Amino acid sequence: MAEYKLYGFGESGNSYKAALMLTLSGCDWECIPVDFFAGETRGEAFRSTVNEMGEAPVLVHGDMMLSQSGVILDYLAARVGRFEPRSEEERQEIWRWILFDNHKFTSYLATLRFLVGLQKTGETPVTEWLRGRVKGAFAIVEKHLDGRDFLVAGRPTIADLSLAGYVYYEEETGLDRSAYPRIGAWAQRIAALPGWRPPYELMPSVLKAKA
Amino acid sequence: MAEYKLYGFGESGNSYKAALMLTLSGCDWECIPVDFFAGETRGEAFRSTVNEMGEAPVLVHGDMMLSQSGVILDYLAARVGRFEPRSEEERQEIWRWILFDNHKFTSYLATLRFLVGLQKTGETPVTEWLRGRVKGAFAIVEKHLDGRDFLVAGRPTIADLSLAGYVYYEEETGLDRSAYPRIGAWAQRIAALPGWRPPYELMPSVLKAKA
Repeated sequence: MAEYKLYGFGESGNSYKAALMLTLSGCDWECIPVDFFAGETRGEAFRSTVNEMGEAPVLVHGDMMLSQSGVILDYLAARVGRFEPRSEEERQEIWRWILFDNHKFTSYLATLRFLVGLQKTGETPVTEWLRGRVKGAFAIVEKHLDGRDFLVAGRPTIADLSLAGYVYYEEETGLDRSAYPRIGAWAQRIAALPGWRPPYELMPSVLKAKA
Repeated sequence: MAEYKLYGFGESGNSYKAALMLTLSGCDWECIPVDFFAGETRGEAFRSTVNEMGEAPVLVHGDMMLSQSGVILDYLAARVGRFEPRSEEERQEIWRWILFDNHKFTSYLATLRFLVGLQKTGETPVTEWLRGRVKGAFAIVEKHLDGRDFLVAGRPTIADLSLAGYVYYEEETGLDRSAYPRIGAWAQRIAALPGWRPPYELMPSVLKAKA
């Protein structure tokens, strides 16, 4: 039995953040697949026994169950001593980017990709609005990466793994990625880390299993 | 000169989270008002000297400048020893709720209130979509508060101050607050803490100053 278990699924970039951390850190882990598209994470059974917030990922380690990718990344970084802050200032700066990611970067990108790329809503006022928000968040990261290889401290940290959660998916978003070359180069730098694998190689696709 | 300075403004519930923490903790602080509505926080001068993310609040303490309300709350809690976690488990649980707040609770509520209550966009597909998201987030908190006075650890913590950031504003959102009685009672419990003050009494309203 694996040391770590992760409730998650291939389509979930938030799950991928945790899965990538586990993989890059050489942890012994396995995925417990959840069927988000059938409403499993939002159902009563999941909410009452796994995560009241109705979301993946959830990390199980011994008696401990942790949800929210930022909390999971923070826990694993401290435990395995990889991608971790090495000073109080680095810790603050890492959390600053993880919060920005949850509030604006992943938040808008993941929702846009869900609507356009998975639900196939087509272009709507909501997708247009979300894309405007994504562009705002991308512009901030693009500028921050001017002269920086990674977001914080000149080396890869959990801040990078958080923001990178949704950048490797190829489903349609209608966003012109070529407008953000530094983000593209940063994503390639993360993908060059030993052991890196893309999302659907770490966790099974729910939609492909149904197809 | 006050010990703490906070870039913020009355309409910003994210600034209010920090302002409320400073006030309830008896800190010596003052507000540096920023004109969000004239684009000040999103302008080059602010981004290059105060916060590259183009957002309030920003806390100045000595040589230190901190942005993201969650980072500011965490810093102040450790410094003043109020509303702080008292164990590693409490710390994880507090961060879990602060991340949920940034991703879904404050995020959707603040944006809905900005569009409907401040920009006066009227009802649009975007406001309808946001309100659905707000209802989802409110339902999770409403359920979590069943049998709990506060979000974590049975006492007020920075998790409560984070989620409470936007619940005292009276501008229109089109959300039926009476559907969430536990959230209402929880907000009153926070408002009963010694020294509590509503948002516009802690920082000036930008819009009222222009009116």
